[in-house]
This record gives sequence, structure tokens and C-alpha cells, in this order.
Amino acid sequence: MARGEFDLIRDLFAPLSDAAHGFWLTDDAARMSALPGHNLVATADMLVSGVHFAADAAADVIARKALRVNLSDLAAMGARPKAYLLSLALPNDLADGWIESFAKGLAADNELFAVVLAGGDTVATPGSLTINITALGELREGAALRRSGAKVGDQIFVSGTIGDAALALAADTGKITVDDPNDLQALRTRLLLPEPRVTLGARLLGLAHACIDVSDGLVADLGHIVDQSGVAAEIEFSSVPLSTTARKCVDQSDDHVTSDNAVRVLTGGDDYELLFTAPPDLAGVFDDLSIELGIPITAIGNIVKGEGVSIRGTNGDPMTFEKGGFTHF
Amino acid sequence: MARGEFDLIRDLFAPLSDAAHGFWLTDDAARMSALPGHNLVATADMLVSGVHFAADAAADVIARKALRVNLSDLAAMGARPKAYLLSLALPNDLADGWIESFAKGLAADNELFAVVLAGGDTVATPGSLTINITALGELREGAALRRSGAKVGDQIFVSGTIGDAALALAADTGKITVDDPNDLQALRTRLLLPEPRVTLGARLLGLAHACIDVSDGLVADLGHIVDQSGVAAEIEFSSVPLSTTARKCVDQSDDHVTSDNAVRVLTGGDDYELLFTAPPDLAGVFDDLSIELGIPITAIGNIVKGEGVSIRGTNGDPMTFEKGGFTHF
Repeated sequence: MARGEFDLIRDLFAPLSDAAHGFWLTDDAARMSALPGHNLVATADMLVSGVHFAADAAADVIARKALRVNLSDLAAMGARPKAYLLSLALPNDLADGWIESFAKGLAADNELFAVVLAGGDTVATPGSLTINITALGELREGAALRRSGAKVGDQIFVSGTIGDAALALAADTGKITVDDPNDLQALRTRLLLPEPRVTLGARLLGLAHACIDVSDGLVADLGHIVDQSGVAAEIEFSSVPLSTTARKCVDQSDDHVTSDNAVRVLTGGDDYELLFTAPPDLAGVFDDLSIELGIPITAIGNIVKGEGVSIRGTNGDPMTFEKGGFTHF
Repeated sequence: MARGEFDLIRDLFAPLSDAAHGFWLTDDAARMSALPGHNLVATADMLVSGVHFAADAAADVIARKALRVNLSDLAAMGARPKAYLLSLALPNDLADGWIESFAKGLAADNELFAVVLAGGDTVATPGSLTINITALGELREGAALRRSGAKVGDQIFVSGTIGDAALALAADTGKITVDDPNDLQALRTRLLLPEPRVTLGARLLGLAHACIDVSDGLVADLGHIVDQSGVAAEIEFSSVPLSTTARKCVDQSDDHVTSDNAVRVLTGGDDYELLFTAPPDLAGVFDDLSIELGIPITAIGNIVKGEGVSIRGTNGDPMTFEKGGFTHF
């Protein structure tokens, strides 16, 4: 990183900030105020080239994913995103135009999600390109969706469809073959550019007893909810919402108890859908909400007494597998 | 990073959090509330092994430095630190006990600076160990110290002493020789473990017109103040406060206009002292404050009309050199 590159970054990132709202890239820190009666909510995610995205992925898409995985964490709390801090460790061999493309990706998502860049840091690294985003949101006091609130008798719901990103990763790493290029593209889009359920998260406040975003995998994340709530979960694999493409991949195996792709769908993660529990009499409310927001909301099982997550395959037998995925602290 | 290591990290870091204050490492994001009439202030710094600290540096010291450089940014705004989010990208060949030592360092500074770990992320990296900390602080509304407030007629003040860290780095990279091992140790301590001037920063609210922390180097950071304030600065090298050890290093050259060590002191950075401007009639107030806090506060020059930073060497001639240092965006 030559000095000129740092100047370039500053010039490119300045328009992503919003001085009118108290975010000054020109000071040592950014200020922000919460609305009266509101808390601020903060979350951080770090992405490393070759681990969390392919080294040759498009920079604008990398930027948007780095931002969106954080917005998904805010959504899981029911918080409204406001701003983010961006730290970049950049290697010397960065491709020409990489930073410009990265800034363009951020600009697009700033507009889409009504957030601004509030600060950060840029450093040189002899190692892998590394991105950290800390996202800041706002939440009415006492209103947070938490992991620990699931109650026996709750239904378990999930937004969107599950497993596309995991199947894309399996295809890209040669573990499975997806013949139709359109299918492959559909899966890859989910992996590269998740849709954080920000609007849905805010609407679940006061309705859901517990909520998490599916980043580690459906089973692992449902495990977080039941562990922290002191309950157990039973879900039906046949109820788990799959995209048309994911359905094709899973149906390549007749026996869902042993299908590798069924396991991938349930444990692969990177879905960034909202997984939540709520009293069953709210099912109609979620149907209406699903239509209003244009986001599928599907009941996939129930919270019961006990511990752990049990999954019944389409043939009625229990599915068992190692918990996969990825751990936040 | 095996799965067990992530679990270890979670267990080690959990006590660094504070559930009573709304910081839950077990949820997707942390909540925090600002006092009524206060803003929240956020800043981020990224540190890379081999760039910002030696690969073989002690993990507890690395942890404390990563936290302290952020606290210094909050201090430069006059904000009171509250919490921080920590993201770690860890290589496979991490030394045994590294994480334990790192957590111990954080625990010590949590207590010293009354802050808590509010969240973060841990990932594996094929590259260099990389640390990002985003620090969150609190500030009375409208009270921020900013870089842009310097006024013609202001005096320029700096806390502590300047240049020790730069000389330590020069010694450690073989550019200079420091004969006395005690001297070398004194310089290194300043490089490894900066003292963020958190209490002083908060006390400067309402007194200082402009403030910055010296991270890029005295000249570069004073440059940020004058550029953003639309004024110029004149300082005397003979007034710049040096430690006994730094004084020895500088005095090794008779001619301060060309002394490499004088240039190192003025441009090296990593000092994490507060550099601020204020009306000259407050000099007595700063004398009292200096005694009360046990932190030297020294007048080093004046804000005048014009642009840029001029420095007069001890022989009366102007010193000229390339601006050095490191750029935040």
C-alpha cells in the first residue's frame, strides 16, 4: 500500500459517509445518537479472502456480502441498521480498480439499506485480504429479539429458503455437480449476495419469543436457540423450505436420511434467513406478514421439553449427523 | 482453527463481557444505551502481525495495545470508553497459550479502563494474525473535541512526551543504536504499551478548540488539525517535550536541523498523546490539570493564519522533511 492508495481510499469512501448525521470520517471517531427510548446495537463480522470469499470474487460483491452478514445480525435482534465501521487489511497485489469496485458495492447497499459508513481503518497486510465490518443499529429499549426466549409449545418458523448457499459452495469446491447452469447461478447468487431480513426482523419484535439468523447452519443455529432457552426442538425435514434448485439437488438421493445434500442444506449455513419461535396462534399473523413483505415464512417444527435438536427425515426416521458450521463467540 | 479452539475462545472471552450492562456475547449483537443527552462514539483500528506488532510479541501486550489505540481515539474526542467489539483472524500455527495470554491482557485493561467486551468474531486465516477492535464510548451531546476547531491565536499543547515509540522502532529495526539497555527498555515500553489519555481527553471538553491523538506523527497529526481548521501552525522543536532517553538520542546529533532522530521524533507517530489547541489564557488551567492528573502538558507553538505546519529547529532555522506516518480514512 503506497501512501497514494490510502489517499484514494479516503477520497472514494468519503461520499459513503454522512456528515449531516454526525458521521465524520475526518475525526478520530464517529458520533451517533439513538432516538429517545432506544438502545444502540452493535455487531462485528470478519471476512478473510480464501476463507469467506473466493480470492477472485468481484470486489463490489465482497463489499456487499461483508456488510450484509452484519445487517443480518442486526435483523436477528430486530434492530434497524444505521451505520457501520469498515476496517480493511489490503495486500500489495490488489488488482487495479479493486478499491473503486469495493466502494461502488458499498454505495449500492448504503442506499438499499439506508446505512452510512461511519469510520474505520485501512492498513497494509503481508497476508490475506481481510475485511471487518462493525454494524450499528437502533432498537426500542427492552424490545430486542434474543436467542434465549423460546418456550415449550412455540412453533419454529424460518424465512426464505434454506441450503442454497451450502449447495453453491459444494458445487464450487467440486463436491457435487449441478448440471443446469441456471441452477448453479441461482445457488451462487445466494452464497455471494445474501438478503438480510432487516424489515422482517423489526416486524418480529413483540411477536417472536426467540430469533437468530441462520449463518452457522439451520441445525447449529436452532441448537443455539434451544441451548440458551433450556428447551428442545423437533423439526421435519419435509417442512424445511427449499428453493426449486435445492429441491432438485436433494431429490437426487431417494433416501433423505442419508442424502449428503439434505445434510448440506441443514448444516451448511450462510443462509442469512431468520429462524424464530413464536406461539402457534400467531401462524396467521406470519402468513399475512409473509404476503405483505413478499418473504416466505414457513413453520418447520415445534419447541418441546428436553434438550437438543431432533430432525425427522421424509421417511419418518430421525436424521443424525455431526453439527457443522461456524462458531461466533 | 479447529472447532475446539473456537469453543476455548468463547469460554475465555465470556468473563470479559458484562451481561448486567446489556452486553451479551450469546446473541447476534450487543445492546448498549447512552445516558440521556449523550451520544455514542465509535472508532475502529486494525492491527496486523508483522506490520503493527512483531510476530513474536507477547499476546497480552498485543491485546492491550489493540485496545489502547482505540481508547486513544475516543480520548481525542473527549469520549468516555464503554465497550468494544473484537474480531480476530487467527492463523493455524498460533502458539500454545496465545489465546489465554491475549484474554488476560484484555482482562487487565478492561479493569484499568472500565470497559467490557461487547461482541465480535473469530475466524481462521491462511495469512497474518489480524486484530480489529471497534471501541464504543459516550459523550455529552454537542461536546465532542474535533480536529476542525483550531483558531488563529490558539496555543498548541501536547500531553506526555513525543518520539519514544518511533525511536524504539528505529532501534528494533537496526536504524539506530541505543546503548543503555534501560533506555532501550523505556523506549520499547512506550511502543508496546501506549497510555491512552482518556481522563485528560474528557477534561479538555469545553477547553480545547481542536484535538487529535498523535498516532501518525506529531507533524502529520498537527497537519490534520490545521488542514481541517483552515489555519497554520508554528512550533519550536526545542519546546517539544522529550523523555530523558529521547533527549539523549536527539542530542547525539549537534545539528537538529538535520538530525535523523529529531525527524523520527516529530514524524514517527505511535505516541498516543493528545495534541490540542486552546486560547493562551487557558495555559494556567492546563498547568493545574497537568499537576492534578500527573500528565505533562506542554505548550509547543501557536496557531497562525495561513496553511501547513512550520517547525523551527533549536538553531532557529526552519526544519523541513517529508511528512511521514500512517493514514486513517
